[in-house]
Amino acid sequence: MKMQNLNDLMLDTLKDTYDAEHQITKALPEMIAAVKSTQLKQAFTTHLRQTEEQIRTLDRIFEMLDQRPSRKKCDGMAGLIKEGQHIIEEGGDAEVLDAALIAAAQKVEHYEISAYGTLRVWAQTLGMTELAQMFDEQNRLEEETDQLLTQIAESRVNQKAK
Amino acid sequence: MKMQNLNDLMLDTLKDTYDAEHQITKALPEMIAAVKSTQLKQAFTTHLRQTEEQIRTLDRIFEMLDQRPSRKKCDGMAGLIKEGQHIIEEGGDAEVLDAALIAAAQKVEHYEISAYGTLRVWAQTLGMTELAQMFDEQNRLEEETDQLLTQIAESRVNQKAK
Repeated sequence: MKMQNLNDLMLDTLKDTYDAEHQITKALPEMIAAVKSTQLKQAFTTHLRQTEEQIRTLDRIFEMLDQRPSRKKCDGMAGLIKEGQHIIEEGGDAEVLDAALIAAAQKVEHYEISAYGTLRVWAQTLGMTELAQMFDEQNRLEEETDQLLTQIAESRVNQKAK
Repeated sequence: MKMQNLNDLMLDTLKDTYDAEHQITKALPEMIAAVKSTQLKQAFTTHLRQTEEQIRTLDRIFEMLDQRPSRKKCDGMAGLIKEGQHIIEEGGDAEVLDAALIAAAQKVEHYEISAYGTLRVWAQTLGMTELAQMFDEQNRLEEETDQLLTQIAESRVNQKAK
């Protein structure tokens, strides 16, 4: 489909992000199983629940746009998740793996922070204020997760990995 | 190679980031050719020069660590670049493509912001203050590029794409 206007582009990016969130729900259980730190296991588990909730929010956004929810393969997220899987496959010291998987998860969070930040600005440009607020809220959740992961890394995991 | 400590992990991530920067220098000329906005063409061209400079900084960092510079395939960046290439292949209205390629480039910037942020914290944890400062400077350059792209999108490109 050739994109003719910002509305087409927003919808296309919505489908990409919808696919990315689904990929994350598939990847997180493996990451939860692989990490040693209880605090990190808990943070990933909470984020899995949040991601499922975020998918429901995206379902509502598709509905508001009179569109059936659909996924467009997100190559960016596929690559980021592959990185996490390689870390698990390669193995190593448990504390070092925890630090490596935090870094991998933060790259995933940054992808989403960027995606929702862009979607918010486009929705604003298109005068869709309610949608812009919903994207802003999704963005905020990703930023909170990113900050929590930094905190877990700096307070404990990195020192143990050292 | 199984990673035994934070030092191994930092070196592994350095090789991944080194590969990511090289991938970016390969991808940017195609993006420069594809965009319509003169301001955006200029921003991508400046960033290409910056990225080449960043690679030289990473060369110096390898040297400081008594390592030969080497690349480890960065799947995350490969996926992000693939997204940008799909946008160019799919085609569409020139102003919409500009907006789409800004979004794709900002995802690349966010990958690097996350990577250098992590490397900085690990270097600090390992007591390598000079290295931490060098990673911090790389991080700052990526954040500046990200902000410049937001500014170009909001000041002009998004309105034209609308």
